[in-house]
Amino acid sequence: MIQIPQGFRLAAANADFRGKKLGRSDLGLVVSDTPAVAAGVFTTNLFRAAPVLVSQEHLSRGHDRIRAIVVNSGQANACTGEQGLENCRLSLRLVSDALAKTGVSVPPEAMLPASTGVIGAHMDMEKWAAAVPALAASLGQVDVEGLVRAMMTTDAFPKMAGRELALPGGTVRLAGVAKGAGMICPNMATMISLVLCDAAVDAAAWADMFRRAADATFNRVSVDGDTSTNDSLYGLANGASGVRVCEAGLPLLEKALTEVLGELAYMLVKDGEGATKVMHIHVTGAATDEDAEKVARTVGHSQLVKTAMFGRDPNWGRIVAAAGRAGVNFDPLALRVTLCGVELFRSGRPTDLDFDALLEEPLKAVDLPLDISLGDGHGEARLLAADLSHAYVSLNSDYRS
Amino acid sequence: MIQIPQGFRLAAANADFRGKKLGRSDLGLVVSDTPAVAAGVFTTNLFRAAPVLVSQEHLSRGHDRIRAIVVNSGQANACTGEQGLENCRLSLRLVSDALAKTGVSVPPEAMLPASTGVIGAHMDMEKWAAAVPALAASLGQVDVEGLVRAMMTTDAFPKMAGRELALPGGTVRLAGVAKGAGMICPNMATMISLVLCDAAVDAAAWADMFRRAADATFNRVSVDGDTSTNDSLYGLANGASGVRVCEAGLPLLEKALTEVLGELAYMLVKDGEGATKVMHIHVTGAATDEDAEKVARTVGHSQLVKTAMFGRDPNWGRIVAAAGRAGVNFDPLALRVTLCGVELFRSGRPTDLDFDALLEEPLKAVDLPLDISLGDGHGEARLLAADLSHAYVSLNSDYRS
Repeated sequence: MIQIPQGFRLAAANADFRGKKLGRSDLGLVVSDTPAVAAGVFTTNLFRAAPVLVSQEHLSRGHDRIRAIVVNSGQANACTGEQGLENCRLSLRLVSDALAKTGVSVPPEAMLPASTGVIGAHMDMEKWAAAVPALAASLGQVDVEGLVRAMMTTDAFPKMAGRELALPGGTVRLAGVAKGAGMICPNMATMISLVLCDAAVDAAAWADMFRRAADATFNRVSVDGDTSTNDSLYGLANGASGVRVCEAGLPLLEKALTEVLGELAYMLVKDGEGATKVMHIHVTGAATDEDAEKVARTVGHSQLVKTAMFGRDPNWGRIVAAAGRAGVNFDPLALRVTLCGVELFRSGRPTDLDFDALLEEPLKAVDLPLDISLGDGHGEARLLAADLSHAYVSLNSDYRS
Repeated sequence: MIQIPQGFRLAAANADFRGKKLGRSDLGLVVSDTPAVAAGVFTTNLFRAAPVLVSQEHLSRGHDRIRAIVVNSGQANACTGEQGLENCRLSLRLVSDALAKTGVSVPPEAMLPASTGVIGAHMDMEKWAAAVPALAASLGQVDVEGLVRAMMTTDAFPKMAGRELALPGGTVRLAGVAKGAGMICPNMATMISLVLCDAAVDAAAWADMFRRAADATFNRVSVDGDTSTNDSLYGLANGASGVRVCEAGLPLLEKALTEVLGELAYMLVKDGEGATKVMHIHVTGAATDEDAEKVARTVGHSQLVKTAMFGRDPNWGRIVAAAGRAGVNFDPLALRVTLCGVELFRSGRPTDLDFDALLEEPLKAVDLPLDISLGDGHGEARLLAADLSHAYVSLNSDYRS
């Protein structure tokens, strides 16, 4: 069970945004008792949903005064124009007013909204108005899993990770949650992730470590290469532990944060739509890290490589062909490809090993290490990538029906 | 039926390269009675198969002295190292010797080899030696379809196109053949295509128009985004019609050549592995043609768009999200998306049309026009892209079993 960091209270309610009377919560709330420093990492898609735009606005006005995160599933409030922005702002006012009636004062501009679900439809503001009293009333009575469940769409399991960290001055806590499933890809996805921390940390240092941790984790996973309009990753640090992170403590906090985001990112791929495998791609020996990343992404996105992994087929030819078309210059004779510890390709040729016999068992595992060495350069990159299965096609060709 | 241009003779034989006694031909030959000017367009993959390397060598030594093309299916002779290059050269010598015994003199260095099939394995030179007498004996007794069938691997139907063209001075003929199916993508693929022409044309002009025609056709199709080690496109013009193409005739010949390659490229997508749909993507209004092409490729490669088309789902959200992550800067409010003539998206919002009712019938067709306007720029691009079906996953996850 993931502990809630100090000074945070969670809430959840059922607004029936999907209109299907599913009887599960679809509205979640995080409130910090005191203003927190906040970091945000957002989708790079040109089409940014209303909650992304509003969050960016609120962060730019006061990223050290954030008090709450409001998250809903079922309606993404994307491609909804001016009306969408108004609805987003109204939703925050409704939550703020409902909280005020329970004696909790959080102004709307101290809130960060996040939405996930069907895009294009306007949010149903009557459902918001009807649900916020129950949301406010539940504050402090919801645990981390209850918060995640309010965010889930097609996710098969709730995604949470936490750390307790002994620092000079005392113990601080990190708790992270995420929802994912479809449209997961580099540069964020149909993905919402929230990280709460009770350390006191300099706002700029927090934002910097957050960006780096996201780059090393969420931006190194791929389910299908598609990036959504709503991808958002928020981090709040409220200082409620009373522990101020000094210069020497920053790397320790960053390490713990990276581990939490790394666990969440792994869970996103493992629970990618239709995924049966997680390729752990590690490219080394490239001239630069950028070159290594290009090769990792080309291999990880290759439909032929993905279907081969689904079929438990040690098809070195597809891996080699993908590396060769990545737009990176390397010596084909230097390439080495190792799958699940078995070297498949070296010196421009497949090795003479009996791949099918050696790899029959290893390829039944969910996690498949795939090591690709391009030569003797120092550039390297990692990527977690899902396979491509019949279930992916079924889920995505029948999505609306 | 596609007529063979004058001065060319075709041959085919069964070498049983697949080792399965399939009883079908897998070795093809084109011989021009006189030296032809030749153009070649090759894979951009770093891993170029032995026949690609040997062809490039022969073209660089005398691109106006090419007499023959030797094509085999079943063994790709890719990732075969030095031995592969030696085998490739030996295969041409075997064909040359066999032809000499029938009184046809074609030196190996006037031949262009092309191979397709399983990569990594060495060619079986005993099978070559055993098959070349029958190949040489069949010269002149094989029609265009017979040549294509010797090239086919997982292709569902033979791909051929032809033109007769009245030019000042007389009539010239073009005949094109292609094989495709898997690994079809921009910048050539597991693709071999040959075009024969009996016009007399300047070698540089022929090479130039060939490059442009390939860019406008083969490099504008995508089945799965993967590029193979063997993709080759050859064009021979031998002048046997006696018609020399003058300055005024060049654009006419280029138009006919582009049409032939365009028909072949369309057939490649239609017969892409598991393909049930061909998206005709047309991006307009971009700042530059390059921007338009990036958007077209991102949409055409999106697994979510491809599965939606397979599912006959007018899912504008996936198309818009793909356009928005293409790495191209445009005004989201200016984007317009029209599928099968029905406008789905405009002014940052889905239109109010009843997509499901309007598009139920149109989406049952194989050919789906998808028009994407980014604004009022002059840049545009076209791409033909396959959908992503259960059959694709089945074919590619069971490939080796």
